[in-house]
Amino acid sequence: MTTRKIIMDCDPGHDDAIAIILAAVQPKLEILGITTVSGNAEIEKTTDNALKICDLVSLNDVIVSKGASEPLVRLRETAPGIHGDSGLDGPELPKPSRSWSEEHGVDTIIRLVKESKEPVTILPTGPLTNIGLALTKAPEIKNNIEEIVLMGGGTFGNWTPTAEFNIWADPEAAKKVFDSGLPIAVMGLDITHQALATKEVIEQVNQIDNKVANIVGELLVFFASTYKEMFDFDGAPVHDVLTVAYLVAPELFKMKDVNITVETKGEFTAGTTSVDLHGVTGRKVNAKFGLELDVEGFWKLMIEALKKY
Amino acid sequence: MTTRKIIMDCDPGHDDAIAIILAAVQPKLEILGITTVSGNAEIEKTTDNALKICDLVSLNDVIVSKGASEPLVRLRETAPGIHGDSGLDGPELPKPSRSWSEEHGVDTIIRLVKESKEPVTILPTGPLTNIGLALTKAPEIKNNIEEIVLMGGGTFGNWTPTAEFNIWADPEAAKKVFDSGLPIAVMGLDITHQALATKEVIEQVNQIDNKVANIVGELLVFFASTYKEMFDFDGAPVHDVLTVAYLVAPELFKMKDVNITVETKGEFTAGTTSVDLHGVTGRKVNAKFGLELDVEGFWKLMIEALKKY
Amino acid sequence: MTTRKIIMDCDPGHDDAIAIILAAVQPKLEILGITTVSGNAEIEKTTDNALKICDLVSLNDVIVSKGASEPLVRLRETAPGIHGDSGLDGPELPKPSRSWSEEHGVDTIIRLVKESKEPVTILPTGPLTNIGLALTKAPEIKNNIEEIVLMGGGTFGNWTPTAEFNIWADPEAAKKVFDSGLPIAVMGLDITHQALATKEVIEQVNQIDNKVANIVGELLVFFASTYKEMFDFDGAPVHDVLTVAYLVAPELFKMKDVNITVETKGEFTAGTTSVDLHGVTGRKVNAKFGLELDVEGFWKLMIEALKKY
Amino acid sequence: MTTRKIIMDCDPGHDDAIAIILAAVQPKLEILGITTVSGNAEIEKTTDNALKICDLVSLNDVIVSKGASEPLVRLRETAPGIHGDSGLDGPELPKPSRSWSEEHGVDTIIRLVKESKEPVTILPTGPLTNIGLALTKAPEIKNNIEEIVLMGGGTFGNWTPTAEFNIWADPEAAKKVFDSGLPIAVMGLDITHQALATKEVIEQVNQIDNKVANIVGELLVFFASTYKEMFDFDGAPVHDVLTVAYLVAPELFKMKDVNITVETKGEFTAGTTSVDLHGVTGRKVNAKFGLELDVEGFWKLMIEALKKY
Repeated sequence: MTTRKIIMDCDPGHDDAIAIILAAVQPKLEILGITTVSGNAEIEKTTDNALKICDLVSLNDVIVSKGASEPLVRLRETAPGIHGDSGLDGPELPKPSRSWSEEHGVDTIIRLVKESKEPVTILPTGPLTNIGLALTKAPEIKNNIEEIVLMGGGTFGNWTPTAEFNIWADPEAAKKVFDSGLPIAVMGLDITHQALATKEVIEQVNQIDNKVANIVGELLVFFASTYKEMFDFDGAPVHDVLTVAYLVAPELFKMKDVNITVETKGEFTAGTTSVDLHGVTGRKVNAKFGLELDVEGFWKLMIEALKKY
Repeated sequence: MTTRKIIMDCDPGHDDAIAIILAAVQPKLEILGITTVSGNAEIEKTTDNALKICDLVSLNDVIVSKGASEPLVRLRETAPGIHGDSGLDGPELPKPSRSWSEEHGVDTIIRLVKESKEPVTILPTGPLTNIGLALTKAPEIKNNIEEIVLMGGGTFGNWTPTAEFNIWADPEAAKKVFDSGLPIAVMGLDITHQALATKEVIEQVNQIDNKVANIVGELLVFFASTYKEMFDFDGAPVHDVLTVAYLVAPELFKMKDVNITVETKGEFTAGTTSVDLHGVTGRKVNAKFGLELDVEGFWKLMIEALKKY
Repeated sequence: MTTRKIIMDCDPGHDDAIAIILAAVQPKLEILGITTVSGNAEIEKTTDNALKICDLVSLNDVIVSKGASEPLVRLRETAPGIHGDSGLDGPELPKPSRSWSEEHGVDTIIRLVKESKEPVTILPTGPLTNIGLALTKAPEIKNNIEEIVLMGGGTFGNWTPTAEFNIWADPEAAKKVFDSGLPIAVMGLDITHQALATKEVIEQVNQIDNKVANIVGELLVFFASTYKEMFDFDGAPVHDVLTVAYLVAPELFKMKDVNITVETKGEFTAGTTSVDLHGVTGRKVNAKFGLELDVEGFWKLMIEALKKY
Repeated sequence: MTTRKIIMDCDPGHDDAIAIILAAVQPKLEILGITTVSGNAEIEKTTDNALKICDLVSLNDVIVSKGASEPLVRLRETAPGIHGDSGLDGPELPKPSRSWSEEHGVDTIIRLVKESKEPVTILPTGPLTNIGLALTKAPEIKNNIEEIVLMGGGTFGNWTPTAEFNIWADPEAAKKVFDSGLPIAVMGLDITHQALATKEVIEQVNQIDNKVANIVGELLVFFASTYKEMFDFDGAPVHDVLTVAYLVAPELFKMKDVNITVETKGEFTAGTTSVDLHGVTGRKVNAKFGLELDVEGFWKLMIEALKKY
């Protein structure tokens, strides 16, 4: 079996954390590196959170590099209302056993892609600042990127009525990625809102008797509480986890070839993704867009992964 | 019973036509005038279509005035792919028995509102050019407008991925209306797409044995065919009809108080309505937004209206 | 000698007032009507000011119609810092002897253009709201408009660093005008700032012994004082007067054929005119743009006009 | 005498080249490094041109690093109409004796600033991509930057009617720089157009009997020819050279404290700098803006510098 080389570019973040946990036990995936970005919380917090999760799942040899602390052009905004002040509120996790790499996250992405003998897949689950920076600094890495599988956007929004947080937080970087010509698969709100960690899901997780599953249970409980409060959802959507699930079990996903363009200029719509589901714009297809999730299959995949710990 | 004084500002258009047909037999409504606008087709066509429908339902005393032939600022674009070249393709209707008024549609709106002893409700079912012009030319009419019940916008689009046709066709006029401070009720795509004229609906219509119902049946068949082709819908959504139904039977509608703002500046999102369903923007409530339709009740209302002819 | 039929669409305003005063004694010009717009001050004030000036120069038979009280889309902003609270601070003028017409300014423009046997030239010296409304309501008037000679725009700004007040106050209306395909001559800040009413000019005016010249002298003194304070100018530029002078004595003006496009979407540049002096954009010529004024000749024209009173 | 540590971030380009030539003989300046950016020509060409000029003036120990090959967000556009196909057409210069550094230009900027014991001044004379990238990747370098003295912007444009080439080519990067809070001095078109290399200037240069002056003469002749053709100028403005002159002889410059904001969203005005000369916007001062140049003093400085070779 060939494994897929991946870089996880993230801002943990409850769902980012669970995405790493899911990825770490997949024989089909080889995590080349984890890079972090400011998003759900400030960069030091998201990087510490990534390190803590690496400790939890014994990803001791995977480089963790701190990336961009602010967007390309706009001012930084974080999401403490959703992820708590630490970016990963809920469970008590020990301080990380190691520090982040001396290498900047953007350089880690560039180096890992260049060094890899096989094309690399990047999984951005935060604002796209690092990817935008890497593509601007070293556009030649496009030649060795297999695919970008990202969480972001959708046909509706959450942070504003029409924009999803990751794209909204750095629309210029997102535009760079969507205009790059690279193969892109997009887990937008349309599909991630199908992956709700309901009470039933949390119960299933809690019945697994290991440390990692316990932590995941606690993450989901906290995450559900803020989603209830802010959006009146019954359970939190584990957005970022879908990027990993898509690589492992693409058969669970109904995707559609579409054009996606990022609005950077609107007065009220900055960060909105214009997802051309019906081909009304005449713009060229540049992405696969997640439409429908086999919800049962998805949670089965998740539960089985947690049982491996 | 008090009747509600209404002005129908429209661009017939299949669903505009049916909206007039529904309104004409409502004892609760008094149609003060019909004004037309360029939209689904060019202004001469939409005005002729309005006159033809008035003939069909014997609205012989209602003034029909031709309004704006182009948007406030942008270039005109029509929708022949949806409504056919005439704007009302399908049934063969006789030439109108009368001509449109000498008075400009915008002036008809201003005059009727000023002359009315009771506050007037305006039902725009096309681009909002006439209303925008009237509000700029004579802002004092706001004092005698009870409500604007319009078809337009939504949390997703049809003409572009994020914009609905009526708002997209004249975003600046729409912005004027939404920023006017007037009470506004909005039938956007979220709710109008629930009002699908399915095969079953069309059958019910066809079982009614009168001329008007026959014409409505033919309109729905044509409309359904273009919606099938362009959007792969099973039946056409009779968007505009909901404005009339809402006045007659508000109990069929689940509405939500929200802020709606129109994007006029975006590169890809002009005409997008930012509908703040979850109160994430901090903007003040300025509209009632249609969320859910009692579909069965709606069609029952429609069928009963047709039986009166 | 053939006379040129003109409509003066203005927001007096010191320089608008002087423009009327200059026009009223020109045998080459026939003033068909004066329409007013909100701009330098609120609409009631600018209309009253127009009426007062008509009284002053005995334009008793010229219709004065009140036009738009607010811009097409944006919120109204006036310029009391420049023109004082009345819009025409400085001289004490008696209350107008008559009231404004019952006809709306926009309708006066449309009617006068349609009724005229010869093509009409329009001289807008305020925000372009009325012209934008007229062109949207009755685009057929384009067939009988000879030219639009307007004061507005330039290659630099005054109200913002890049936008001139008249264009900035209603950019959407301005865009409508510049995109109309009509012949347009533009007196922008580049040329109007050459027409400074310096101390020497004011002295010359004051040496003329008639009522009208005395009032003009007082207007210039007040106008100069606010320009000194706000922009540190030695004398006020009599912007609007150039539109009239251009019709009467085009030989005083060095004009250049250029494309001018109005920015309506910028975050900091709304209302900026992009004046393509060097043909770098590839856009088609749509205007004559004032580059250089024969300053001496201009003031000679003005002084001689004042002596006729 | 204390020397000022500088990094020259450039896209040679005729005036960039002359800026390096002027800087290289200034005892007051220590060139820490030269970084290049895509702008006047593609990155490989501008970097080769920088290396050729270093050879010409024996800057053998100064690192030359290749920076960004494309803007942050937008598509790359170069200026062959102004600088010829090579970016430095005119004189025949030998191939560079060395290659560019392995280090990326952005990293060179970050490293040099961090390593320097004294605060560093950066002189960007091309699009601001490298600076924008450096500030995003390593915002902490702000603590050791003394000033950014850049060529760009102005109250009017050259590449579009309202935008100057360097800012237009990467408005998002420019916005990052102007919003950075760093001390900025701006040589915009208002002042650089005063530094015309006229025939008289070129004659003076040609009377200097050394290799470097000869090359400068040839550069000026070519540069003047394209400026004549495109803008009908009598002599080319040596824009970029003013950044160096300002550090060496600030007394030649009349500067004004202003706010400068970059438009990134306009439809026709992207890259326009809104330079608030009259304080009309209420925005805070963030830059010194070049108003007036002691032209004679400037050319004297230049001629004397050339005589030192």
